[in-house]
Amino acid sequence: MSTVKSPAVSPLKDYIKTNDKRFLDELLELLRIPSVSADSKYKPDVLKMAEALKSKLVAAGADKVELVPTAGYPVVYGEKIIDPKLPTVLVYGHYDVQPADPLNLWTSPAFEPVVKDGKIYARGSCDDKGQMYMHVKAFESMLKTNDLSCNVKFMIEGEEEVGSANLGQFLKENKERLKGDVILISDTSILANDVPSIDVGLRGLCYMEVEVTGPNRDLHSGVYGGAVANPINILCEMIASMKDKNNHITIPGFYDDVLQLSKEDRADLAKTPFNIENYKKDLDINDIHGEAGFSTIERTGTRPTLDVNGIWGGYTGEGAKTVLPSKASAKISMRLVPNQSSEKTAELFTNYFNSIAPNSVKIKVTTHHGGEPVLTPTDSVAFKAASKAMEETFGKKPIPTRGGGSIPIVALFEKILGLKSVLMGFGLDTDAIHSPNEHFGLFNYYKGIETIPLFYKYYTEMSKK
Amino acid sequence: MSTVKSPAVSPLKDYIKTNDKRFLDELLELLRIPSVSADSKYKPDVLKMAEALKSKLVAAGADKVELVPTAGYPVVYGEKIIDPKLPTVLVYGHYDVQPADPLNLWTSPAFEPVVKDGKIYARGSCDDKGQMYMHVKAFESMLKTNDLSCNVKFMIEGEEEVGSANLGQFLKENKERLKGDVILISDTSILANDVPSIDVGLRGLCYMEVEVTGPNRDLHSGVYGGAVANPINILCEMIASMKDKNNHITIPGFYDDVLQLSKEDRADLAKTPFNIENYKKDLDINDIHGEAGFSTIERTGTRPTLDVNGIWGGYTGEGAKTVLPSKASAKISMRLVPNQSSEKTAELFTNYFNSIAPNSVKIKVTTHHGGEPVLTPTDSVAFKAASKAMEETFGKKPIPTRGGGSIPIVALFEKILGLKSVLMGFGLDTDAIHSPNEHFGLFNYYKGIETIPLFYKYYTEMSKK
Repeated sequence: MSTVKSPAVSPLKDYIKTNDKRFLDELLELLRIPSVSADSKYKPDVLKMAEALKSKLVAAGADKVELVPTAGYPVVYGEKIIDPKLPTVLVYGHYDVQPADPLNLWTSPAFEPVVKDGKIYARGSCDDKGQMYMHVKAFESMLKTNDLSCNVKFMIEGEEEVGSANLGQFLKENKERLKGDVILISDTSILANDVPSIDVGLRGLCYMEVEVTGPNRDLHSGVYGGAVANPINILCEMIASMKDKNNHITIPGFYDDVLQLSKEDRADLAKTPFNIENYKKDLDINDIHGEAGFSTIERTGTRPTLDVNGIWGGYTGEGAKTVLPSKASAKISMRLVPNQSSEKTAELFTNYFNSIAPNSVKIKVTTHHGGEPVLTPTDSVAFKAASKAMEETFGKKPIPTRGGGSIPIVALFEKILGLKSVLMGFGLDTDAIHSPNEHFGLFNYYKGIETIPLFYKYYTEMSKK
Repeated sequence: MSTVKSPAVSPLKDYIKTNDKRFLDELLELLRIPSVSADSKYKPDVLKMAEALKSKLVAAGADKVELVPTAGYPVVYGEKIIDPKLPTVLVYGHYDVQPADPLNLWTSPAFEPVVKDGKIYARGSCDDKGQMYMHVKAFESMLKTNDLSCNVKFMIEGEEEVGSANLGQFLKENKERLKGDVILISDTSILANDVPSIDVGLRGLCYMEVEVTGPNRDLHSGVYGGAVANPINILCEMIASMKDKNNHITIPGFYDDVLQLSKEDRADLAKTPFNIENYKKDLDINDIHGEAGFSTIERTGTRPTLDVNGIWGGYTGEGAKTVLPSKASAKISMRLVPNQSSEKTAELFTNYFNSIAPNSVKIKVTTHHGGEPVLTPTDSVAFKAASKAMEETFGKKPIPTRGGGSIPIVALFEKILGLKSVLMGFGLDTDAIHSPNEHFGLFNYYKGIETIPLFYKYYTEMSKK
């Protein structure tokens, strides 16, 4: 009896279905490697992760796979050129992850992945190992079923969570090898599993660290209190004075380059499905909090922010210590929107911070990494292909949205390689990326693997026209 | 040949001189015990310290020496009743010390005392092991030279640095045993080694801890930043709003009970020798900082304060983490002056802190220990005796001053035992108590041992009149 498959069943879908268990196990394997780029004590693990990913690309069938060295962690490169005359898709992703702390808030260890209620729990499960690995498995599936419709080049970096400091140099040095037509990135979210969306805008980032020094040593708060500047009180006052009552940021010139929304933009954004009550319930907050005059969607997607990411000073141990500390510090980051510049913002911040410091303290301001905000076109072939691919797998046309996060390198790709990016992400805002108990839905993981080949197919078809 | 000493040489002075090396070694021995009462992991050391002190009192010749149990650490008690008709001096001190951190700022380990440039460097060298042990050695010297002029009772507690929570109960339960005429305490400073002084006022203390909770988990500052309250920003704003531009504390009712200074008080205080340039140089600050309209001496001695003693929240590790944290916390203490009450102040603080919190965060306020401010009389026999004793050993009449620190139990002694205290301290404000590299001058240690017997002598004489 013949075993010819009914033409209704696609070999690709079939292959993905047959191998879904392995696809998951391979991801869990990678999630066990604590590739935290922000903390140098994980260096061996980050390098181990790069090696592991290299092997996976080879196994998937990529050619010329190698770890391209940079001043920091290497970029994992691999490619498959099936026909130089066909379009070439450059897949970008990152294999490094955020620090896992506060560790005590994880219900299962951050680097011992568990699958629970249809979700993979582990640091990096969504951001970005899970979303990045969807591309590796989609690639394998296309190859094994002779379904790869164009050329592909992978560049997976290991420093995205610390600002991709060395990627620009990598792009400059590898322009030839990186020749292509479009950048495909899955490092963003969809609105909901039944509400597909594609990010068309990303915020930039300007990350600063400040240190306020009062007296040259910790003092007895009784003997000196009231007469000597307390650096913690001063730091709090300085931070407080960076926003006004309407939560507008008070740094002079901060908003000068902000691209204001048109009536049309606001009307479009207002159409985004969003339930404020569910939002508050999910976060267990009684009220939202932000810049006056803007909706939550506008606040996260289209307006700049100033958030203290960390603060420390004085005695933080058990009990009570009556100390007037010598120093207080904070990590403060600003999300930027078109057309702000991280470099200019860092300068405005530094000048302002120094200008508001009383003479009774000394100030040190350090600039960490930054990234530029971007808007991606919605009329491009790539966007249309991504939209059509998602419409087919989700059964709904994806909504163009603006993400609040930052992928600084999107601007770099345009500047150095002259290539636009398409942000076809499959995560959810509720995946707790950068938080304890980060997770990624199995639905989302497999939906990505299923959708990506369709992007290749439609992108190639539409490019011909 | 007879060895009769010339009457010019006092046997007491002679005894102190002959034994000075041993007096120092015994103190160093006690300084090696890390009796940190604030941190429960040092519990065995605090108890070891109590035992060690008990043995020293026995060796010095005290009777009925015992560790009197309390709900917390025991009080070391000992006495010598030479004649019930003579006055009785109750000596108070404490054998517990402040935590030693930040440890990295100590030039030699906090609990490995070293003598350098005529100073003893160790946690507790001045506050209060050094000043407390002067009394034990002065007592020994008086006994051994038949120079003890009145009865003495020692009560050395182990919880002063955490607010003497159990001392009140101890006093109530031991009223009979603690019958006496005056409390003698050395836990304060003199203005300078050539400018003796006696504290006649002490500030009280109200120590609070606050926790601000925003979202129920750490969030990605890009995805949520701008739309959700950041507890660190909010905490900073709340702390900043507790003082106005003139550094007046804005808590409603905070100043209601503050005893205002009379013209005369201010004139007297203005006479205190004080060099602002040396003060700034010692602390390496460009400017002092405090409540408008008051001098530095007034700010530390006669005005209440609000100082953040510690703050923490979010990511404080290496590098950059773009987190919008769930929680932020701070330890905030207020120094109180007559006639403020720590209990009422804690209530005012709590009500105000809750009232200024936006609806987008949740607040938790905890009250740590408190203590009441005191003023001690300058017309008492005890004060006059102390003044005469110091005038004799320093060659200068001591200046009555107001200390900024707190010894909460001074108010307790008055309330429960009905006894006034005399604050005859021998430390210096520059001894870095509560700070890294705490030290105590050998000059000050021996000057104390030499002065204390004279206090007994003059107190007994003047009491007869």
